[in-house]
Amino acid sequence: MNAIVDPTGEVGAWWATAVSHMEPGIVELRGRPVQELIGTVDLTSMIWLMLRGELPDAARSALLQAALVAGVDHGPQAPSIAIARMAATCGVGLNNAMASGVNVLGDAHGGAGEQCVRLLDEVLRLERDGLEIAEAAATAVAAGPKYVPGFGHRFHPRDPRRDPLVSLAEQAVRDGVVPGDHLRAGLAVEEHLRSARSRPVPMNIDGATAIIYAELGFAAPLARGLFVLSRSIGILAHAWEESGSGRRNKGPVPRSIVPARLG
Amino acid sequence: MNAIVDPTGEVGAWWATAVSHMEPGIVELRGRPVQELIGTVDLTSMIWLMLRGELPDAARSALLQAALVAGVDHGPQAPSIAIARMAATCGVGLNNAMASGVNVLGDAHGGAGEQCVRLLDEVLRLERDGLEIAEAAATAVAAGPKYVPGFGHRFHPRDPRRDPLVSLAEQAVRDGVVPGDHLRAGLAVEEHLRSARSRPVPMNIDGATAIIYAELGFAAPLARGLFVLSRSIGILAHAWEESGSGRRNKGPVPRSIVPARLG
Amino acid sequence: MNAIVDPTGEVGAWWATAVSHMEPGIVELRGRPVQELIGTVDLTSMIWLMLRGELPDAARSALLQAALVAGVDHGPQAPSIAIARMAATCGVGLNNAMASGVNVLGDAHGGAGEQCVRLLDEVLRLERDGLEIAEAAATAVAAGPKYVPGFGHRFHPRDPRRDPLVSLAEQAVRDGVVPGDHLRAGLAVEEHLRSARSRPVPMNIDGATAIIYAELGFAAPLARGLFVLSRSIGILAHAWEESGSGRRNKGPVPRSIVPARLG
Amino acid sequence: MNAIVDPTGEVGAWWATAVSHMEPGIVELRGRPVQELIGTVDLTSMIWLMLRGELPDAARSALLQAALVAGVDHGPQAPSIAIARMAATCGVGLNNAMASGVNVLGDAHGGAGEQCVRLLDEVLRLERDGLEIAEAAATAVAAGPKYVPGFGHRFHPRDPRRDPLVSLAEQAVRDGVVPGDHLRAGLAVEEHLRSARSRPVPMNIDGATAIIYAELGFAAPLARGLFVLSRSIGILAHAWEESGSGRRNKGPVPRSIVPARLG
Repeated sequence: MNAIVDPTGEVGAWWATAVSHMEPGIVELRGRPVQELIGTVDLTSMIWLMLRGELPDAARSALLQAALVAGVDHGPQAPSIAIARMAATCGVGLNNAMASGVNVLGDAHGGAGEQCVRLLDEVLRLERDGLEIAEAAATAVAAGPKYVPGFGHRFHPRDPRRDPLVSLAEQAVRDGVVPGDHLRAGLAVEEHLRSARSRPVPMNIDGATAIIYAELGFAAPLARGLFVLSRSIGILAHAWEESGSGRRNKGPVPRSIVPARLG
Repeated sequence: MNAIVDPTGEVGAWWATAVSHMEPGIVELRGRPVQELIGTVDLTSMIWLMLRGELPDAARSALLQAALVAGVDHGPQAPSIAIARMAATCGVGLNNAMASGVNVLGDAHGGAGEQCVRLLDEVLRLERDGLEIAEAAATAVAAGPKYVPGFGHRFHPRDPRRDPLVSLAEQAVRDGVVPGDHLRAGLAVEEHLRSARSRPVPMNIDGATAIIYAELGFAAPLARGLFVLSRSIGILAHAWEESGSGRRNKGPVPRSIVPARLG
Repeated sequence: MNAIVDPTGEVGAWWATAVSHMEPGIVELRGRPVQELIGTVDLTSMIWLMLRGELPDAARSALLQAALVAGVDHGPQAPSIAIARMAATCGVGLNNAMASGVNVLGDAHGGAGEQCVRLLDEVLRLERDGLEIAEAAATAVAAGPKYVPGFGHRFHPRDPRRDPLVSLAEQAVRDGVVPGDHLRAGLAVEEHLRSARSRPVPMNIDGATAIIYAELGFAAPLARGLFVLSRSIGILAHAWEESGSGRRNKGPVPRSIVPARLG
Repeated sequence: MNAIVDPTGEVGAWWATAVSHMEPGIVELRGRPVQELIGTVDLTSMIWLMLRGELPDAARSALLQAALVAGVDHGPQAPSIAIARMAATCGVGLNNAMASGVNVLGDAHGGAGEQCVRLLDEVLRLERDGLEIAEAAATAVAAGPKYVPGFGHRFHPRDPRRDPLVSLAEQAVRDGVVPGDHLRAGLAVEEHLRSARSRPVPMNIDGATAIIYAELGFAAPLARGLFVLSRSIGILAHAWEESGSGRRNKGPVPRSIVPARLG
């Protein structure tokens, strides 16, 4: 506290935080001097530390890491990637290009993870209220939106990221690393959608990572936040590649194509 | 290619990329099926793979990781953090709050790493042209801007992140992991500033990480891009904490304080 | 259409729009050659044209303009303004600083206009279903969130922008320019809050402009969109002023104040 | 000032501004109570007031307005527009979609106006130093970048916005509204490019509006800032239209087209 400029401490309190602390010569992250973390803690554990306040054990960190790696990129068709590439040709910094991509990771683009955690929470609540898990899944899906968050994909009949992520989650349950409730709920929703819908609606990356994040105890909104960290890597890679193309003001289609007139 | 919709392939070529590829049932990152990466590659190596096209060895990955961990957060006074916290109270998504913070990591806020790599490149160019390294450092600094990028800090007389990062870089040189030229140039600039200026201008986080990124072969703009990945972690942690505060429309100072009138 | 590159027209159709059209030598906005608009159409009517497809009459344009002018700025305590000012010191472009401010005009910061239009729509629906307007207002408020969108203010016991905007709306109703239903609904909500709550919750800028936007036939989300256009002016003015301050990396409070530690 | 929380006034001074002032019951913009501006000042004059501190006369306001109207939109091929449209399908707010578009109005996308003002300033400086204006234009262009800011267009052999804007500027000079120096410099650059280059490089929208902004006394960076205000209108119109399309996660090309593999 500064006794002269901020005698009541109200200004310092306005920006109070448990995340980090800085004074001349000192940088503490979650109470730990930064110099003790550099070279000793891996990046995924650092993410955990910053969000949770403590370091994870190796098994939990590895499971989180698998989910983060899975979400890094999904190809140039994703709006976030296309936007970052266009931005990189407009004469702005790489950080601005990245922000432009991150900014669209909303409810319909990656944000589904957050909604999926809430759906699984609801399935588990219904189960605690006495429903069989299959019935709980059917009930929660019926009460939710048309697009079941975390399930189905406009491109993939089967998302190649589902199986390895679900396998790792199953192994973690067997090893006692995570409790397994959200995994059970997720598989029940998948099974329900398999039997109830005419065309398959398999679990996608948002669903598989939502299971892992929830099993590890992250709150629903962090399913989105963690995905942003993950996808930022792909966004950077694409923006950087495009910035080497020499293009200026890249539009969405080749210049010879004129968008049609509506109305 | 789609022979009917895109018969010349020009539209597909407009978005061509070596970073990733997606077709129904397939996601490839740098030519590798994503399912082979999940659970086997660590997050830092994944960053390297996406930016460079190949996986790093363990020593290079560890050095990169140390630099990334060091930049994660620098306390609530940083504009990027304060901005993300205010954004988190305005009724936008966590991704929007993160984008708002990332968007200001510009030339004066973390972007200094990019400029520092260029400065070190210039020192090394002058050395190749025949100058002693000390003279090369003095010449390059004199030709540059008033704020020497990567050196000096408005808060820290001595940045606590400098020593561990420089030590790791020195060890990597001794181990033959990196060549050591940019480290040598960086230390020469630091020594020059120690002797030439009345008040100390020690190497800061941007300088220390710039050395590591350059030693590992990353281009100058990626010093900024990598910092964005790193700081995004701190931005998320602060935005998430603030989103739990219940505040709405958090301004920069307590509401009882009225900003002064100018002019 | 380009018969060779886009023979099916599917690519051009992907980006089809009624808003504008561009070919070599031609720029059309809502079907009108841009050269016919320059120097003949005022800025507010231009906004109307772009959003609605036709030019407004003078009375409607004037009413829209009054609402836009009212929202331009609300002082340096607003997060959007403080964020743009900090951004302007971080070494990014003025457009990036403006985007950072605009990005936080979310549900809790200006976005209330959108929610207020929906509230007034609900009041009118209940009235059509047979309720008295006072009862309709009470019912709609009771069914809504704790913070009634468009009413109450953390700073102002009485928002100085309310009276002139409501007066202009009342005059427009008397002149037959607008129907008056949303105005009636808004005043009913205000009256209900005056009598029902212990401390006054008068109409604020979001409520008063929501009434005007709705009276003029703009859809609810455009209450937010129009506010963004309006507030962008204040954001630019503040960012520009701050960029002349010579500051670098402006934090939220003077550097002598250290934010408190939580937890 | 708050004598208890901010006794030195340092915190209030940290956010001092001449742009606006707010206290309970009071909103002042450039020293004028907001209620005196609502219904009496037009939107363009409001922009001038906020940026310059005083209201413009009618002739200057009209000239500024013409430039603002000219820049509102340039069709769906522009990256800023395509980005805002994609963003609008990703489940974020309209303000976030607008910010995503505004964020890419950088040095290569609209930011050219700022650079053009600097170029014209340089032409005028050389003229004051004794060069003929034609020679000054040739010298300034030769010293500048390959893309002459404000001249040439990738789509238009002749930008349809040039003639009406130049005509209005010429009329304003004849009427004594503006001095005419920057117009003279701009036409000299255009004439130089006509004679010196093999293919025509006519003045474009950035050049024509830069002339007007500079003639009206706006500093170079405001050429970009004013363009952002103008283009925000088009960005909103396109984002709003796209948000009604029902699309989710709109990519840059139809889904049947797979981007090519590089490398």
